[in-house]
Amino acid sequence: MGPHPAVAAIRLAVRRVLRDVLREHSARSGQQHSTHSTHPAHSAQPGQSGNTAHPVPPLVLVACSGGADSMALASAVAFEAPRLGVRAGGITVDHGLQSGSPERALDVVARLTALRLDPVETVTVAVGREGGPEAAAREARYAALDAAAERAGAAAVLLGHTRDDQAETVLLGLARGSGTRSLAGMAAVSGPSGRYRRPFLAIDRQTTRRACMVQSLPVWDDPHNADPAYTRSRVRHEALPTLEKALGKGVIEALARTARLSRDDADALDAWTDEAERSVRGLPVGELPVGEPAVGELDVARLHALPPAVRRRVLRRTAIAAGAPAGSLFARHIEEVDRLITAWHGQQAINLPGLVEARRQGGRLVIRQS
Amino acid sequence: MGPHPAVAAIRLAVRRVLRDVLREHSARSGQQHSTHSTHPAHSAQPGQSGNTAHPVPPLVLVACSGGADSMALASAVAFEAPRLGVRAGGITVDHGLQSGSPERALDVVARLTALRLDPVETVTVAVGREGGPEAAAREARYAALDAAAERAGAAAVLLGHTRDDQAETVLLGLARGSGTRSLAGMAAVSGPSGRYRRPFLAIDRQTTRRACMVQSLPVWDDPHNADPAYTRSRVRHEALPTLEKALGKGVIEALARTARLSRDDADALDAWTDEAERSVRGLPVGELPVGEPAVGELDVARLHALPPAVRRRVLRRTAIAAGAPAGSLFARHIEEVDRLITAWHGQQAINLPGLVEARRQGGRLVIRQS
Repeated sequence: MGPHPAVAAIRLAVRRVLRDVLREHSARSGQQHSTHSTHPAHSAQPGQSGNTAHPVPPLVLVACSGGADSMALASAVAFEAPRLGVRAGGITVDHGLQSGSPERALDVVARLTALRLDPVETVTVAVGREGGPEAAAREARYAALDAAAERAGAAAVLLGHTRDDQAETVLLGLARGSGTRSLAGMAAVSGPSGRYRRPFLAIDRQTTRRACMVQSLPVWDDPHNADPAYTRSRVRHEALPTLEKALGKGVIEALARTARLSRDDADALDAWTDEAERSVRGLPVGELPVGEPAVGELDVARLHALPPAVRRRVLRRTAIAAGAPAGSLFARHIEEVDRLITAWHGQQAINLPGLVEARRQGGRLVIRQS
Repeated sequence: MGPHPAVAAIRLAVRRVLRDVLREHSARSGQQHSTHSTHPAHSAQPGQSGNTAHPVPPLVLVACSGGADSMALASAVAFEAPRLGVRAGGITVDHGLQSGSPERALDVVARLTALRLDPVETVTVAVGREGGPEAAAREARYAALDAAAERAGAAAVLLGHTRDDQAETVLLGLARGSGTRSLAGMAAVSGPSGRYRRPFLAIDRQTTRRACMVQSLPVWDDPHNADPAYTRSRVRHEALPTLEKALGKGVIEALARTARLSRDDADALDAWTDEAERSVRGLPVGELPVGEPAVGELDVARLHALPPAVRRRVLRRTAIAAGAPAGSLFARHIEEVDRLITAWHGQQAINLPGLVEARRQGGRLVIRQS
């Protein structure tokens, strides 16, 4: 009899990602490795040197809070990694935001060790206040994970974000209303050299919870996740259930699909913008000058010929390159600059955040810090 | 003392649209018209022939249900149109779905006539069942409005959709999860020859309601709008208030902004897809053969070089052109066809809805009805 369907689902998702990591590791090491062989009779154990095909097998780290999603991830990695010849360790981050958090972190370390992950460590971070409590905690967490991955020489850090987390992220992006990129959610692969991997983006939270249950893995429910003081918690416990009630059960899946489609669309438009940016600067494609000054001089006729979506992206990038802070540059700013091109009737210079101004000078649009 | 701010806001919005209509009308008639002159001392009244600059002034029709949004629209059009030398009539659609709806329609006709709109008519439609009650009613309504506009020779039909309607439409599109185009909401200009105009897409529902109140215009609240049997009604009365509570008051504005940005993005990607479609068929840009057979033969290498967002749009269009019904063609179908290009390992033909199949033949991808 095979494993419980929930366990089979999380293992399959992890197996795919570990194979990707292995393939990339082999490519980097200039080695050959069949990506189709799985579950060899003699599986390589972490630390063993028996696997002659991989003198230095890659190391992946599971980032684990002790919650159901990341405990399920740890269990699946612990099962799959040795079978694929991948070393697997774990890391838990103590944000120091709740009393008893150091004991909690040690408890998670003990559980990861019991799963035979190795090395396992806990890192304590100091959470600042910039951008609100959730953003500050996230920033501190990723900085710690980056540092831990560097120290351990890890090829990848695996994160337990589920399809439900993805849906929440899309809704949070929708609330910003800043367009297609803000609806793109979390990437399956992100970070420096594609370090972060999210095997569970197509798996729902209920599956991870069930996988923990049937494997008798104790899980910890972070009280922050249910605290209505946090936006994400309100999205999870209030907004999404109401949306499901109004729009039907498929909403979570629809939001996750929106993320994938929006990411592809935003990537394509960014690629077009790269090319358009060079063209409106009158430079041959592929030759942006080194050490270019932060003054954008753009050709108005060429800008005018671009579709609005691409033109506004070029304008936004040029303003940011000239010194406008991205976070203060809103759609209405860019629309106003755009009217210097599409509705020109002798307007004055447009003032943008960061003391940047956009001014039309004949057939040129000049964007510079004043 | 000027008008109440709510009245000023709706009039300004209407004035801008009427000027657009007038400018386009003049351009079509080969006449000159200053788009900056407003409120001339001698305003042209509907039916008067005093306006020598426009021997045949354009006619606009206000589509009016008797609700606050469209009554506010009718009042603003009645005020602005004569001042701009535009004729303004009204039309109300009796869907025959509620008892007393013919009397209701006659009542709306009386109100529009009292506002001095001329001509004013009511049209009765038969609502089918296809696509659910809301879609069927919408289809019948627009068919009736199209016919009425043709009969009257109207240059435009003005619709009272507000920013709140736009936000609801975006949420409904999000629930479909079919990408950027489905998040584009309603266009400010749409329909045959840009017939439909929505002056209030940036105006909130509260403003139209207030404008009716301060002008002592009676409004009718359609009981369907509060009936939880209708998806849009649940979105309006349950989903959006909860989203506002979870994410803050700016959600409606953010959703409306998402619509604008998504529309521009979808338009740009469609333009790219037009060009890419010609390129992968190996035809010179601008020369699609007339009466082309519904067989797509696409160049795999060129497809492979496209960004996924554009490539999948090309595949989707080709499948539809070959006979796959758009409504049954889902993202997962297109992703599977895409793997014939990006992950080719000798797969069999992919079966798509409408007896269409996609098959790789060497360097070609062939999509045809089987």
